[in-house]
Amino acid sequence: MNLILLLPEDLVAPDRARLTGRRLAHVREVQRAVVGKDLVVGLLGGAMGRGRVVHLDDAVLELELTLDQAPPPKLPLTLVVALPRPTVLNRILVAATSLGAARLVLLNAWKVEKSYWGSPRLGPESLREQLLLGLEQAKDTVLPELRLARLFRPFLEDDLPSLLEGGTGLLAHPGSGEGAPAVLAAPVTLAIGPEGGWVDAEVESLLRAGLKPLDLGPRILRTETALAALVGRLF
Amino acid sequence: MNLILLLPEDLVAPDRARLTGRRLAHVREVQRAVVGKDLVVGLLGGAMGRGRVVHLDDAVLELELTLDQAPPPKLPLTLVVALPRPTVLNRILVAATSLGAARLVLLNAWKVEKSYWGSPRLGPESLREQLLLGLEQAKDTVLPELRLARLFRPFLEDDLPSLLEGGTGLLAHPGSGEGAPAVLAAPVTLAIGPEGGWVDAEVESLLRAGLKPLDLGPRILRTETALAALVGRLF
Repeated sequence: MNLILLLPEDLVAPDRARLTGRRLAHVREVQRAVVGKDLVVGLLGGAMGRGRVVHLDDAVLELELTLDQAPPPKLPLTLVVALPRPTVLNRILVAATSLGAARLVLLNAWKVEKSYWGSPRLGPESLREQLLLGLEQAKDTVLPELRLARLFRPFLEDDLPSLLEGGTGLLAHPGSGEGAPAVLAAPVTLAIGPEGGWVDAEVESLLRAGLKPLDLGPRILRTETALAALVGRLF
Repeated sequence: MNLILLLPEDLVAPDRARLTGRRLAHVREVQRAVVGKDLVVGLLGGAMGRGRVVHLDDAVLELELTLDQAPPPKLPLTLVVALPRPTVLNRILVAATSLGAARLVLLNAWKVEKSYWGSPRLGPESLREQLLLGLEQAKDTVLPELRLARLFRPFLEDDLPSLLEGGTGLLAHPGSGEGAPAVLAAPVTLAIGPEGGWVDAEVESLLRAGLKPLDLGPRILRTETALAALVGRLF
């Protein structure tokens, strides 16, 4: 937690917040804050700055806020990721959020097991919690837009065209032999397949929709590793 | 497991391997192989190619081998990572190995808790297992060199100079404002700090030793995310 994220309901006055629960515990036990200390804070969806500890006990932390910094800009990036195994999902949500992707789409694909879509980790509370962790990690306050696309073809036909408009679409595709484009028109849409990869028909559909293949080299990387390496390469 | 890694003791003849245990289970249950099918295989430290299933039952898998491909080249990269929390260590070992780093150094730092060095995950068997998982993930056969540097200063004085010889040393350092160098002389040594970062004295020592600061931007990333993003950016 590199930034304490404040929710609107934490504010007891425009410049004062009261925290309990997980964030209180973190401030007491990990940051070992004392009265008078300044903490890095940010208001969800708003400005960042510092919060001076004005009261701290077992039950509550009170901060006096100076919110005078803008959050870091988002990357003009939509990540389209085939829905991963539930055990991997949270790491991908945090990685994508912390890297600064403006939008994340979890997409169905042939090799996505149907049971994944029934995971409790896809519940709105669980998803939101991971996105908040990503913001706290990265020192950001602005949630990425998150879409669940349970049907491949409707996403391709109804949603993808507007995402690609005026920008660059890339399909991470081992074996295609294509490097990253020299010039990258924003916004960028980057699609990353499931474990086991896209099936041929999916690759064809995605290329026909306007994505360009992008080969990361002979090494096959875990989704969260590939995603970070691609963002590092492209931005 | 994108490649089945064969150990020398698996070979019952130069072109024949017999597998049991974890790899047998994977081939039966995940890959659902049958007699006659070709699997992607590689000999630890050696060539890669295919293994045709010639026998398969509950107890043993026998493969006829054609090993005619070189493993992918390593990156001329030494990653120097402050020893992470045990729960994070395995992910970092797999990420570094799959990305193709030639060498990985786990280094002590002021903000590395002493207890981390006592973790069973630092036992040679556990470390080796994670490196093998990284190779199986990336379709590689060559283990990276792994060093444990339990003392910061001796590593800096005795080991770092030879790593840096003729190459480029970089210190991932949020807030330094320095981008990646335009030209990167290989070999590259890249140092990544602990959760909470390097302390000032460590930064000074590492810069004095010849590393150049490298700023990934205002976002603070988890170690494994930063590592992949940096490799994606630099190579």
